[in-house]
Amino acid sequence: MAAVSPLAPKAFPELPEIEGVRFASGAAGIRYKDRTDVMLAVFDKGTQVAGVFTKSKCPSAPVEWCRARLKAGKARALVVNSGNANAFTGRSGVEAVKSAAAKAAKAANVPVNEIFLASTGVIGEPLDASKFDGVLDKLAERASPAGLLEAARAIMTTDTFPKVATASAALGGAEVTISGMAKGAGMIAPDMATMLAFVFTDAPVAAAALQSMLARSVQGTFNAITVDSDTSTSDTLLLFATGAAARRGAPKIAAANDRRLAPFKKALEGLLLNLAHQVVRDGEGARKFVEVHVTGAVSAAAAKKIAFSIANSPLVKTAIAGEDANWGRIVMAVGKAGERAERDKLAIWFGDIRVAHKGQRDPAYDEKRVSALMRGDEISIRVDLGLGTGAAKVWTCDLTKDYVAINGDYRS
Amino acid sequence: MAAVSPLAPKAFPELPEIEGVRFASGAAGIRYKDRTDVMLAVFDKGTQVAGVFTKSKCPSAPVEWCRARLKAGKARALVVNSGNANAFTGRSGVEAVKSAAAKAAKAANVPVNEIFLASTGVIGEPLDASKFDGVLDKLAERASPAGLLEAARAIMTTDTFPKVATASAALGGAEVTISGMAKGAGMIAPDMATMLAFVFTDAPVAAAALQSMLARSVQGTFNAITVDSDTSTSDTLLLFATGAAARRGAPKIAAANDRRLAPFKKALEGLLLNLAHQVVRDGEGARKFVEVHVTGAVSAAAAKKIAFSIANSPLVKTAIAGEDANWGRIVMAVGKAGERAERDKLAIWFGDIRVAHKGQRDPAYDEKRVSALMRGDEISIRVDLGLGTGAAKVWTCDLTKDYVAINGDYRS
Repeated sequence: MAAVSPLAPKAFPELPEIEGVRFASGAAGIRYKDRTDVMLAVFDKGTQVAGVFTKSKCPSAPVEWCRARLKAGKARALVVNSGNANAFTGRSGVEAVKSAAAKAAKAANVPVNEIFLASTGVIGEPLDASKFDGVLDKLAERASPAGLLEAARAIMTTDTFPKVATASAALGGAEVTISGMAKGAGMIAPDMATMLAFVFTDAPVAAAALQSMLARSVQGTFNAITVDSDTSTSDTLLLFATGAAARRGAPKIAAANDRRLAPFKKALEGLLLNLAHQVVRDGEGARKFVEVHVTGAVSAAAAKKIAFSIANSPLVKTAIAGEDANWGRIVMAVGKAGERAERDKLAIWFGDIRVAHKGQRDPAYDEKRVSALMRGDEISIRVDLGLGTGAAKVWTCDLTKDYVAINGDYRS
Repeated sequence: MAAVSPLAPKAFPELPEIEGVRFASGAAGIRYKDRTDVMLAVFDKGTQVAGVFTKSKCPSAPVEWCRARLKAGKARALVVNSGNANAFTGRSGVEAVKSAAAKAAKAANVPVNEIFLASTGVIGEPLDASKFDGVLDKLAERASPAGLLEAARAIMTTDTFPKVATASAALGGAEVTISGMAKGAGMIAPDMATMLAFVFTDAPVAAAALQSMLARSVQGTFNAITVDSDTSTSDTLLLFATGAAARRGAPKIAAANDRRLAPFKKALEGLLLNLAHQVVRDGEGARKFVEVHVTGAVSAAAAKKIAFSIANSPLVKTAIAGEDANWGRIVMAVGKAGERAERDKLAIWFGDIRVAHKGQRDPAYDEKRVSALMRGDEISIRVDLGLGTGAAKVWTCDLTKDYVAINGDYRS
């Protein structure tokens, strides 16, 4: 857990301020010593919000709180803690969320129903909301537009680096900014969004339009990554839009199908993909970043299911850790996915090298070139099913002994 | 791969002879040096056969051969090799099966369409059937009723011990014997049967009745185990009945619902469960044998899906490897299964210790007692959903660094 992942981005991007959002982070002593573990974001009045959450049947208490608050589409503050997920904590968990929300509302002087919360860390331990006493007041006082990177650091658990990204887009005649953060390294197989990700923009877009864009953008980004096939109880992705850019001439957008949104949509999707990739790059124990591209399937849904069958296979992932171009295990993973496949039409590539086609090994392939490719830290696998036009890309990492070590003694 | 699994049975059972079956094993040099890698079983005329196979969409060539031969329900010989799975080998794989079957038919002097074959080992390498030349003739010559244990040894790949079991049952006034073998340690999440298992009996039961019993018995045995969630291209379970016990007064049975079959069914199911458990006990890198028992689900199918979600979760399996009673990860696995669950009705036990109930940690549980229990090499987990009467048991092993090591360099 100590060293930064070798797959981490080499540098953090410059993060421009988002008008209408202020950040602060601090130490509430929830679980960790000598580090920050809580962040607060305060939003100007009029901020719209959209969100997607875990599809777990056992969601955390904060997920249930946020789902209920989302209906009104308004947000004034976000509180996130690490060290405790407040999941499977029964009535006491619900009370802890209410209590934390009340404290945050008082600290930021905003309505309690416009507070959003998220928690990440151990499941099943009661969260002691009194840990926030005093802390949130101080954070509200010193919140500033520059605090995003430090906020991203405060919500890390087994993450080895804070994950941030930024993008800009034209909206009407104005330029708007989108910045975001994510956390997550294990229990990553988002079924709606990854562990935790928060995105902020000054674009004046109404909540309903944000929600529609977000639900769509998440499919090829956060819903296309996996570290270990385990879906969290706490997956939360929230998108906050302060609307401040309206003062610089950005048009107010009410509907997701407004054509003026096209550049914004593209920038948002790129930013979500960037953050999702960073989560994979910080996958517990990861040494290889792996893209799995499936083409020629009977449908896009079939392609995605097959891609995930490959990306979640322990045998494929350990082979990649061992730098072994073991395409037989890819055949196995295609076969077990349950989607239509015909052995004698299947072709498989590592990078640009075709290793198998027409139901057997490609006699022309050069094992030495493949071996050299497998020693790199970015591996791309392509599988063509030869049946139709369905395609999907998903991303994962390798499965190493360090994953087992990290997760064999995370709680104790 | 060297040391025998610490979870292996302490001794092999006495294996009584099965009248009408003779075994032999030898070295064909398919992949391994200095060990046996091929077995032959020869059956008396009149032997009936039933089988279940992988549901993989990319099955191996021998699986396709056996499926086609099964329709007639008659078997005179079985040839199994290790070192090469003859899977994803295109036309050459089909030719290799035909050629091996022809050689076996000649060696045993029986019809080629009554030969059954199975192969296990690397996927995607062409199988050179000429390796069998001469070998099968010698095996046919020296086949004897006593060779079952050595045959089980010849079909091992990453297995650390040969897996055999035996049982007897009353059939009418006679006693019949059932004995079997299995192999498999990784790529184990059978969707119909495990990697390879072969069962032999002298009971005079017709093929259709055998097939019906086998399809039913496999659900709670081989289809209830998982090592790594990866389903093989080669899963094959064949049941051969020589009928020799008819000469000792056992009644000839034509239909699976014949009441006289009840003790036989029970013995068969017990034997399959025994073999299936041995596969889990030899799970690659395994140090703990884990039973997952789900009760109170809305249906048996929902219970099984939830049980497998727990048993396949890398986070649950690494926690068990780390001797950590991390029930929060069990909640996660219940939540992601997609079946109905209500957080506030859920209860979880390790052994006889209830650690969680009504949506939160059980305040009465003694962490020290749980920790002591987790240090044992057999762990039982029970989850009660509190919703209905659906129940299922499945078995798995822990996920250790050795699993990663074994699979990071298996091929190379």
